[in-house]
Amino acid sequence: MSAGEVGRLIGVGTGPGDPELLTVKAVRALGEADVVAYFAKAGRNGNGRAVVEGLLKPDLVELPLYYPVTTEIDKDAEAYKRQITDFYNASAEAVAVHLEAGRTVAVLSEGDPLFYGSYMHLHVRLAGRFPVEVIPGITAMSGCWSLAGLPLVQGDDVLSVLPGTMGEGELQRRLADTEAAVIMKVGRNLPKIRRALAAAGRLENAVYVERGTMKNAAMVPLGEKPDDEAPYFSLVLVPGWKDRPGREGRLREERG
Amino acid sequence: MSAGEVGRLIGVGTGPGDPELLTVKAVRALGEADVVAYFAKAGRNGNGRAVVEGLLKPDLVELPLYYPVTTEIDKDAEAYKRQITDFYNASAEAVAVHLEAGRTVAVLSEGDPLFYGSYMHLHVRLAGRFPVEVIPGITAMSGCWSLAGLPLVQGDDVLSVLPGTMGEGELQRRLADTEAAVIMKVGRNLPKIRRALAAAGRLENAVYVERGTMKNAAMVPLGEKPDDEAPYFSLVLVPGWKDRPGREGRLREERG
Repeated sequence: MSAGEVGRLIGVGTGPGDPELLTVKAVRALGEADVVAYFAKAGRNGNGRAVVEGLLKPDLVELPLYYPVTTEIDKDAEAYKRQITDFYNASAEAVAVHLEAGRTVAVLSEGDPLFYGSYMHLHVRLAGRFPVEVIPGITAMSGCWSLAGLPLVQGDDVLSVLPGTMGEGELQRRLADTEAAVIMKVGRNLPKIRRALAAAGRLENAVYVERGTMKNAAMVPLGEKPDDEAPYFSLVLVPGWKDRPGREGRLREERG
Repeated sequence: MSAGEVGRLIGVGTGPGDPELLTVKAVRALGEADVVAYFAKAGRNGNGRAVVEGLLKPDLVELPLYYPVTTEIDKDAEAYKRQITDFYNASAEAVAVHLEAGRTVAVLSEGDPLFYGSYMHLHVRLAGRFPVEVIPGITAMSGCWSLAGLPLVQGDDVLSVLPGTMGEGELQRRLADTEAAVIMKVGRNLPKIRRALAAAGRLENAVYVERGTMKNAAMVPLGEKPDDEAPYFSLVLVPGWKDRPGREGRLREERG
């Protein structure tokens, strides 16, 4: 690093949880970074940090960005929005201090940085001021359908990625209007998601996946899941490719 | 490999084109494979094969699966469908011969194997007969939005992945009914895509990306693209996160 030169911001996708699912580029960038920054709940390091253990320089500076404790405030309230905006602004400035000192800062982002990633809050605040590079990562949904061996979309299929937080009628309408779907943010929305899938005629093919690509991953056809317990980051996959060979047990018949 | 034991089928995502965007797991699997299989046009090796150059065992068996020449046949015709189905059946059997001999077969799949990948045609024919592993890859769309530094989806955004082959009215309806969209298979559909985006009020934010993550990548706001020339595998990205900071030049104002 030469005197007076600013550092580079790198958004690094850390993938769905398995350290082997980092890209070669991500591993190299992490090994070269002067500073590693990551969002985390107070008192925790987060999954992204755990995944990169052993890949960082020994003398690296760690910059954990702890979310403010907001359990007392309604998430829709203006006070919450102001607090979280202030937090992202302050986080961006904490990163900017290192960039201005000429240090390369890698920001860990679970999954893919620009796909629902927390890194985006830093990116939009810093990309105009500093050189930026984004290294894509395997998304949680891709980790899940790969682990499940579930062909998701083929040919001219439409894929809809839907938040489970959406209203039941809206969810049903969209599920009936797409070849394939991924439903995110399942958690306590599972009973509603189940009803919307059934009403849209899509429950039969839906697959529930929990902690995809973690060691304790679990997946089950949603119709066979006996309870409605689900962590927030579980997913429901509804595969497309309606006329695929073997879908109706045709392959087995062909094989005799 | 012990006598009488069948080999393992591995669907390997080779990502969007940059060899550094392979996962660590993909690199390891390719280095261990006895056979590497890949779909390609007759006389060509395909991008997937080029990306893994230098990662394979020296004594590896190559199994290129050349698509039948079908330029004379209408793609919707029964004759075409029969010919392509016969080709996938024969390809699966060519792979099965190696698996039955106990060899590990890695099948290259550009992007992510179960996300519109040609590997899926082998997967559905062989997954019931042999041990199978799928290693996810970075999708072309993720490679593109990362290269463009374009925040795609945040929070409760709906993402729609749409084929550019779809009818104009249908495309317009879906573009007006989603926060973010990725339009694939652009090619000669570009004039229609442009009209549908304009009618849905989404042309302003649309970004055209060509050969994302290749060395000669090109991207431009679609509204500023002067011609309608586009290769088949170009993409149009319509970002969500409507209220993101800086979207309306707010960041620049804040900075004074």
